[in-house]
Amino acid sequence: MSAPAHQARPGNMPAHDARPGDSGTPLPDTQQGMRRRNLARVLHAVAAHGPVSRASVASRIGLTRAAVSTLVDELIRSGLLEEPGPERLDGVRRPGKVGRPGSALVVSGRGPVGLGAEIGVDHLAVCAVDLRGEVRARAERQGSNRGRDPRTVVRELAALVRRVSAEAEGAGLRPAGLALAVPGLVGRDTRTVVRAPNLDWHDTDVGGLLTAELPAPPRLRAPEDLPLTVDNEANFGALAELWLAEGTPQDFLHVSAEIGIGAALVVDGRLLRGTRGFAGELGHVPVRPGGPPCPCGGRGCLEQYAGEEAVLRAAALEPGADRVGLLAERAGQGDRDVLRALRGAGTALGIALTGAVNLLDPRAVVLGGALSELAPWLLPTLERELNGRTAHRACAVTVSRLGREGPLLGAAHSVVRAVLDDPAAVKG
Amino acid sequence: MSAPAHQARPGNMPAHDARPGDSGTPLPDTQQGMRRRNLARVLHAVAAHGPVSRASVASRIGLTRAAVSTLVDELIRSGLLEEPGPERLDGVRRPGKVGRPGSALVVSGRGPVGLGAEIGVDHLAVCAVDLRGEVRARAERQGSNRGRDPRTVVRELAALVRRVSAEAEGAGLRPAGLALAVPGLVGRDTRTVVRAPNLDWHDTDVGGLLTAELPAPPRLRAPEDLPLTVDNEANFGALAELWLAEGTPQDFLHVSAEIGIGAALVVDGRLLRGTRGFAGELGHVPVRPGGPPCPCGGRGCLEQYAGEEAVLRAAALEPGADRVGLLAERAGQGDRDVLRALRGAGTALGIALTGAVNLLDPRAVVLGGALSELAPWLLPTLERELNGRTAHRACAVTVSRLGREGPLLGAAHSVVRAVLDDPAAVKG
Repeated sequence: MSAPAHQARPGNMPAHDARPGDSGTPLPDTQQGMRRRNLARVLHAVAAHGPVSRASVASRIGLTRAAVSTLVDELIRSGLLEEPGPERLDGVRRPGKVGRPGSALVVSGRGPVGLGAEIGVDHLAVCAVDLRGEVRARAERQGSNRGRDPRTVVRELAALVRRVSAEAEGAGLRPAGLALAVPGLVGRDTRTVVRAPNLDWHDTDVGGLLTAELPAPPRLRAPEDLPLTVDNEANFGALAELWLAEGTPQDFLHVSAEIGIGAALVVDGRLLRGTRGFAGELGHVPVRPGGPPCPCGGRGCLEQYAGEEAVLRAAALEPGADRVGLLAERAGQGDRDVLRALRGAGTALGIALTGAVNLLDPRAVVLGGALSELAPWLLPTLERELNGRTAHRACAVTVSRLGREGPLLGAAHSVVRAVLDDPAAVKG
Repeated sequence: MSAPAHQARPGNMPAHDARPGDSGTPLPDTQQGMRRRNLARVLHAVAAHGPVSRASVASRIGLTRAAVSTLVDELIRSGLLEEPGPERLDGVRRPGKVGRPGSALVVSGRGPVGLGAEIGVDHLAVCAVDLRGEVRARAERQGSNRGRDPRTVVRELAALVRRVSAEAEGAGLRPAGLALAVPGLVGRDTRTVVRAPNLDWHDTDVGGLLTAELPAPPRLRAPEDLPLTVDNEANFGALAELWLAEGTPQDFLHVSAEIGIGAALVVDGRLLRGTRGFAGELGHVPVRPGGPPCPCGGRGCLEQYAGEEAVLRAAALEPGADRVGLLAERAGQGDRDVLRALRGAGTALGIALTGAVNLLDPRAVVLGGALSELAPWLLPTLERELNGRTAHRACAVTVSRLGREGPLLGAAHSVVRAVLDDPAAVKG
């Protein structure tokens, strides 16, 4: 009964310390791996605290100044760091305390950008975010994508990608990768949409379709140079909350809605994806086990009480283009049917979240995506139910400020973070 | 909006690659850290594949033979590895292919042992497990601990610890740490029992009480030398399943029962503990939101339908000492009331697990602890409910072979693994 070899870390976002193949017997540390990880540490330190001097970076990460200088020089050569003279620092977004003249380091505003894209039920969007976290280009297209041929939708999306990419390249930026948010379950291959019931897509190789569209003009590099990741919009929304919102804890459950109810679990700062990438299906947690049948095969699932269509039905409203916007507008006007429907949805959310809080013990529940706009009317019954049922294990409920923009920003930032996490992998 | 520094890894079992303080800006790699991690890799490789030659270890972990030899010599000096001549290998548990004479390495059967202890509702137990995974000493004491003074219970447990420890030391072994399984919620300090309703303990510093009892004779070292960890029995049961059972996947939900219903989540080979260490409270997932009130403050919690006492009540049986044993005996005799009660419990388990499977997407659900003995009567309704409700996300349900011994073995093995994960931390 010897103990087996050390187990793998959670498979997750690319991280500077992720070592592929780290299941079974662990891989050895090498000098080369150590250099790559230290490059990431320097770049992260400047991204988080810049402008900073080389000496300050060295003391922050515990390496000698000489070692840091070698790493900094390499990052400057790769176009990831800049070391402008102090007279140029006025143009930098976060001026701070600076050492002697010429020694202030900042992450480059002209280097790589992360491209984020989103296929929504009712829109398409693409943006480019630089290493400093600034959105440098953005394009979108309104219109329902329900039931449309994936190839047509992807072709339209690719046109937006090319437009944003060209705009970024015109400003001297280089796309370092593309991440796509979709409203459905994505396989762990990060390419295939396994099921997106609200688009009526299943087993669709969206990654492959998009790759095939992208070598075209104007100036986007060949697809083999541009890593492409497809993921669920709730996952990217949660990552955006983790990375961009002030005060977000490292453990939370992010709940969002776009027709369906989606959730994403962040545990110790990492997404919990599940064995097949299907974790976070809060919408199909049974709320009333004998309740109405759900297309998923279950009965009384949360989505049957708190999904957009269920709420519209309960409020006797017709589904339109901006369903959440309509509900928020009517609720704001005091429409009794809408208010009652939202109270019922809040109660159902509270019951499903009681199960989730008991299972996961998160620091907080964050209402994100379009759901954040309905928070004022959902929260009273949601919190009454959740707090009443979890007396000994109370969990804060907060509302996202990123709202509907979260998934797109999370997608773009996931590419940016992959650059920060392994700068040596970026091609010049 | 610069991205913050890289996020921490899941806080978890001590692991050879865990770096305390790895939140915020990452720590640098150092030569010293690299050496410690490589010592762990060598020791893990021998534990998993021994007897093996130095050359075979080198090729398995990708280091040079010279580097491995230096590390092996250090591990032999620390008493963690042995290099018996081939004539002595017959006495080794897992003989395999061996290189040239004298070159076969095995983990030591005379070095450190992990001490595991358990406070159950109806018993106390302690065991010592060596680096090869063999139980070298064991002691237990039957009798209910419900409502007893924690000091009295801990004093009795300490006597068992001293007895097992003395027996191990008599065989030339050195206790390297002590891990204690308790039937309740344990704080992330891994000392304090926050709530153990079935012992009627709350906010009890069990770690402190046990430490205070242990410096006594006969020969256990001073407590500051003996790391002590207290954790929930469901967590240790899940870890035992992960480490000791053949074919256990890296992602599973382990469900156990001892009066209450406990669960533990293993994600990518690691325990998911939750913000406060309270994750896995499957027993308080709402099954029927308007159902009977639960002492937890909720209504219709799983425990109200599938907890031991609820099942005994539904079967019109009196609670006794070995409740699960009684239920299994009566069910085996075809007692209709018991069979009906177990069917109902299986249905409730299936509903609660539907929520868990939707949220977590595990590879499998494992019925462990005492619950494994009831599996034949729970599984039919449990699986019908779970599979019917998760048509697109089916999840296998398996039954633990470790059963009630899981938590104690998991506790002892957690100490053994801490030694394998950082052999340089072991005092000679």
